[in-house]
Parts: sequence; C-alpha cells; structure tokens
Amino acid sequence: RLRQGLKPISGLVKSTLFLFLFLSSSSFLNSFRSSQTQSMELQVRLRQIFFFSFFLLTVLEHSYSARILTISKPDRHDVAASARWLVSQNIWGVLSTLSIEHQGAPFGNVVSFSDGLPGKGNGIPYFYLTSLDPTTRNALKDARASFTVSESPIGTCKRDPMDPTCSKLTLTGKLLQLDEGSEEEEVAKKALFTKHPEMMDWPKGHDFRVFKLEIINIFLINWYGGAKSISVDEYLRSKS
Amino acid sequence: RLRQGLKPISGLVKSTLFLFLFLSSSSFLNSFRSSQTQSMELQVRLRQIFFFSFFLLTVLEHSYSARILTISKPDRHDVAASARWLVSQNIWGVLSTLSIEHQGAPFGNVVSFSDGLPGKGNGIPYFYLTSLDPTTRNALKDARASFTVSESPIGTCKRDPMDPTCSKLTLTGKLLQLDEGSEEEEVAKKALFTKHPEMMDWPKGHDFRVFKLEIINIFLINWYGGAKSISVDEYLRSKS
Repeated sequence: RLRQGLKPISGLVKSTLFLFLFLSSSSFLNSFRSSQTQSMELQVRLRQIFFFSFFLLTVLEHSYSARILTISKPDRHDVAASARWLVSQNIWGVLSTLSIEHQGAPFGNVVSFSDGLPGKGNGIPYFYLTSLDPTTRNALKDARASFTVSESPIGTCKRDPMDPTCSKLTLTGKLLQLDEGSEEEEVAKKALFTKHPEMMDWPKGHDFRVFKLEIINIFLINWYGGAKSISVDEYLRSKS
Repeated sequence: RLRQGLKPISGLVKSTLFLFLFLSSSSFLNSFRSSQTQSMELQVRLRQIFFFSFFLLTVLEHSYSARILTISKPDRHDVAASARWLVSQNIWGVLSTLSIEHQGAPFGNVVSFSDGLPGKGNGIPYFYLTSLDPTTRNALKDARASFTVSESPIGTCKRDPMDPTCSKLTLTGKLLQLDEGSEEEEVAKKALFTKHPEMMDWPKGHDFRVFKLEIINIFLINWYGGAKSISVDEYLRSKS
C-alpha cells in the first residue's frame, strides 16, 4: 500500500516543482548569461534547490519500490513461499470457470482478489463476485475453477513474461460461495476491502457475494526445469 | 517498442549521471559554503548541468509514454476498436484450456502472444507453445479455449482492475496449431518474434509450435452496463 501511495504523491510534488520552475523561467536565460549580482545568486540557488529536490524525489521513489521488492521476493528454491508471494503481491488475476453459455468451454475472467490483510495473507484467494457476471453463474453450476497470476504485474520480471524466470502460478480447485454472516466471510470481506477499497462502493443492487477458491492443485513455474511440485498443505503452511 | 526501449536507456544514463555526482561529491558540501572562486563556479555549473539533465530525462521519459498511450486508446463507444486495442497493446495474457490432468477442470496459463507486427495486428492472438506445457497437450485433445487480457498491464487504468472502466477482454474459441511451413505460420512467427525477441532463443529441443485462437465469441467490458456485444466480423474488420 505504501509503495502504491508514494507514486501519486511524488508525482504531485514534482508537478508543483515543475510549475515553480515555469514561473521563474522568464528570467531563466538571463541569469545564465551573468550571475554576478546578488538577486541572480538567489535565482541560481533557487534553481539548484528545485533540481536537487526533483532528483531526490525521483531517486527516493525508485529506491523505495526496489527495496521493498528485493526484501519480499523469496528464494526461488523455497517454492511454497514463492507461490504464496505471487498470491500476496498481486491484486488481480484470471479466474477460469466452465462456461454455461459456450457449452462447457473454459472461460477466463479478469478479477480482483485478496488472500488477507497486507502481510497477513493465508494463501486462499477470496473474490467479490456478482451473479451478473458469467463467472459466478458458471461456478454455481459447476464449481471447478482455476485462478492464475503472473509475476509480471509485480514489476520484478527482467525477461519475457513467458520466460520461466518470470514466475507464474495456477491454482486449480473449487470456486465456492462463503456462507453469509459466517466468520470466514467477515475475514474475507475485510481482506478484500483492505486491498480493494473501491469494492465498498460497488452497487448494492448488484448483489455481490464473497467466494473463495478451495485449492486442490498448485502449478508453479518460477525457474527453468518445468512446473514445481508443491502440496496444498506445504503451500498453506508456508509464509508469504 | 520505442516506449519499452526508452526506460532502460534512460535508466542507464541516469546511473551514469549519478556516478558522476558521487565522484564529485567530496567537494560538494564545501562549495555550498562559498562559491566565489573560479573553480567553485565551475563546480556549481557542473552540478547544475547534472541536475538539469536528470530532470529533463525524467520528464522526457514520462511525457513520452503518456503521449503514446493517450493517442492510442480508442473511444469507448467504438467497442470493436477497444477490444482490438487491448489485444494489440498487451504482450501477455491468460490462455485457458480444459485440463486432462484435472478431469476437465478449466486450466488458465500465463502466455506471451502477438496479433501481428506493432501497429499492423489482425486481432488474432498467436502463441508459441511447447508440448511440455499442459496447455498444449490439453488443446491437442480438446481445442476449446479462451484467452483473457486486461487493460491493467497497459498502465491506463485509473481505478481498480475489476472496475468496469478498467477494460477486460475474453476471446473464446478454438486453440489450433498452424500448419508447419504454411504462409500463416510464417506471418505469425514474425509477429511473435518481433514482440518477443527472446522466443528466438528458446530451446530448439522443446519443440515449440505456433498456435492461434480461432475466435468464436468476444466478451468485452470497457464501461459500466455489462459486457458489450461485438461480432467476430466487426472485431476482425476493425482497426486497433
């Protein structure tokens, strides 16, 4: 969240700095010609401050996100942690169900999700779905589903999105609606609304319900040599 | 391509500038105290150049990508163009097939794709797949498939990835292997290798083949009010 929050703030400050430069730019070229008088000195100093602040902000912005990411990406040999990391860091993925409309064809749909409060996820993806969405109708008829995320949106891939070093994860299982008013539903809602505050304002009339993917199989590629074998138990016990 | 190329170059130049600053930083604080002598003047000027170049580069980098994106996103009322835009701008998506291993469950897999040379796409997603990948084996048994992309990776979404204003597209159809040596395969290979140069170096022994999604149905959400109706013909005739 902090990492996401920094960019707009930094952008705003930069814009202000830019405006400031623009306003003082009328005397900009003049001051380059001779900078001997006292007021010229001041202008030079002001411009120095401007450029230096801009520089600092940009470096801060980049180093900050880079640091966060370096700390959080697990060692690739810890495959369970790598899978959990992909689920905890992503905020959207593709949820596939068996299509009613298209005679059982697989139907992948872009959805937002959350596996828990930041840093406290449990590895189970929760969704907030409406029956206006074909994915929901499909799941209520046949719960078989898979959920797919990529490392690409996290920003740590150095190569092609399909290169094995750019991790990808597919969780196969059953897409189940949580009992309304249950404790699990409360926890899941909090998890969803924390990562996706906009969900709280989604139209009440659309009848959004909380679903989870009950995981049966884990397919992870996070290095060369094919899919890694991870049991559901290992995955759930691991810490992201 | 240009847009993608600018970031690393700019990063490199910035790093060089940063190194330059570091080397001259020993006298950095001194020169702030008094800047009367001739050599001090020079140092101040050098620093000015450094900060100004850094600033220019950053602004250039950002304005450049912003401009590209503003030009290319089509009007939301032109739904066929909006769908084509999502396919032409994305470089990866999720390809869902019916899993052999998991008794016909839908299996979504992260894949790279291309619908043509930049600015010359035809709207048909082409893939470069190996039989080591379960997706390929699934498709060869049952061709029913869907391919899903989001506006989120393009960087133009202002709201949550599941908000209807953040476009998403699911193409449902048949995943077919192209005849080896055919003209279509040649064109598709060029399309793939241009957007994904790394593919040319993928191991020959893994037996990569070119596939396409023969589109039967188009599911687009690019605004409030549910999925937009687009015929395959409209989609293929439109220009991205």
